[in-house]
Amino acid sequence: MSFDEILSGSQQELRRGTVVLACLLLLHEPGYGYALMEQLRDRGFTVDANTLYPLLRRLEGQGMLVSEWNTQETRPRKFYRTSPDGERLAAGLLADWGRIDAAVRSLGQGGRTR
Amino acid sequence: MSFDEILSGSQQELRRGTVVLACLLLLHEPGYGYALMEQLRDRGFTVDANTLYPLLRRLEGQGMLVSEWNTQETRPRKFYRTSPDGERLAAGLLADWGRIDAAVRSLGQGGRTR
Repeated sequence: MSFDEILSGSQQELRRGTVVLACLLLLHEPGYGYALMEQLRDRGFTVDANTLYPLLRRLEGQGMLVSEWNTQETRPRKFYRTSPDGERLAAGLLADWGRIDAAVRSLGQGGRTR
Repeated sequence: MSFDEILSGSQQELRRGTVVLACLLLLHEPGYGYALMEQLRDRGFTVDANTLYPLLRRLEGQGMLVSEWNTQETRPRKFYRTSPDGERLAAGLLADWGRIDAAVRSLGQGGRTR
């Protein structure tokens, strides 16, 4: 495996855990899978449909998202929205994110000044 | 699954990808597995031996860590240290971390002000 492959794999790993949080935050505004995938991609959280769609179903099963079919357009689409429990989860994860970020940055600085 | 279990699972997921980066940064200074696990735990990156030890072997196999046996103490211990390639990987991941953090925080603020 080349250095660039190792870097890119580790970068993906670094982003993976943030996708749940990003979905919960973006779905304050109802959205359907494909549009959400594009919003995520625009913000640097690249995730493919085979990962995102099962994740949305899992979050719905856990009660963190609610969904509704919109049948007013020619092609019916399932719209997801963050539930009140999902908002609580997002707030908890966001608070945790601050702690993780502080820990990562303090390690990063330690490395540079040693 | 209760809300607290979902929160704690998602928090673990959020941290998982940072463990590689934390190891590379901490192992600027040579360290052995158990001591590293304690350093990680003290900084909030809780990881068990069944996850950490294979991860260290993987990073060594990829050339990101180098190791040496210290046999001067009563119990021989394998000391790991970040290699020059590992330092490059850490620098790349740290730069990426800044971008991920900015994306997460901008989403978090969007959610609050909407």
